[in-house]
Amino acid sequence: MSNSQAAAVKIAAAYHQAWTTGTLDAAASHLAEDVICYAPSGVIEGKAAVRAFMEPFAASLTQSTLLAVFGTDEEAPLMYNTANRAVPSAPGAELYRIQNDLIVEIRIIFDRLPFALARGDVIEV
Amino acid sequence: MSNSQAAAVKIAAAYHQAWTTGTLDAAASHLAEDVICYAPSGVIEGKAAVRAFMEPFAASLTQSTLLAVFGTDEEAPLMYNTANRAVPSAPGAELYRIQNDLIVEIRIIFDRLPFALARGDVIEV
Repeated sequence: MSNSQAAAVKIAAAYHQAWTTGTLDAAASHLAEDVICYAPSGVIEGKAAVRAFMEPFAASLTQSTLLAVFGTDEEAPLMYNTANRAVPSAPGAELYRIQNDLIVEIRIIFDRLPFALARGDVIEV
Repeated sequence: MSNSQAAAVKIAAAYHQAWTTGTLDAAASHLAEDVICYAPSGVIEGKAAVRAFMEPFAASLTQSTLLAVFGTDEEAPLMYNTANRAVPSAPGAELYRIQNDLIVEIRIIFDRLPFALARGDVIEV
């Protein structure tokens, strides 16, 4: 699952494990105060805002599977699958950059379409 | 960009470089005949079908940037950003599994929402 115990890999895996098991305090402890998160919906800045962004999704999870985490001391890509009531398979990928043992940047990739359809934000035409 | 010249990393990077520069023959040469591709829209089986799936998107690209590729001899996650006329920023992540120097499995993650909106497949309500 991991090619090394490089620093970014360890921190990415710990952060992922924390938020996918609902321990958001532990997850947030890995975030730098000025973390910047590039998400499909836009840019989220700061530890509190990133936590607020992740918390409802974390709370909705019914399942989570880590697919891969690799990296160096500075960056780590991580891929996973999740399930919740609205979307039975929602894979995601995140690329973390680490400085001083904290996550300073996260790029999140996931498919918003099934979530937007489930919420009724968009309809098929 | 790459933590090693592990086999899967080399093949993933070569495949990515090929399809993002429009050399689909070269890209397809890295695919096993029975490659299986898990995409947001469903499962695509076989080299010809995967090539047919990638080709229109590859042809539409106006820009492509490799963000990260890591891995071992067996698997490699790769993250990138793309642009085309319809969607100015469309990041993607792919996880490759390699056997006998060929790609036997690809998991693709990207946000279908901006593409579906641009095509008029869905509308915001």
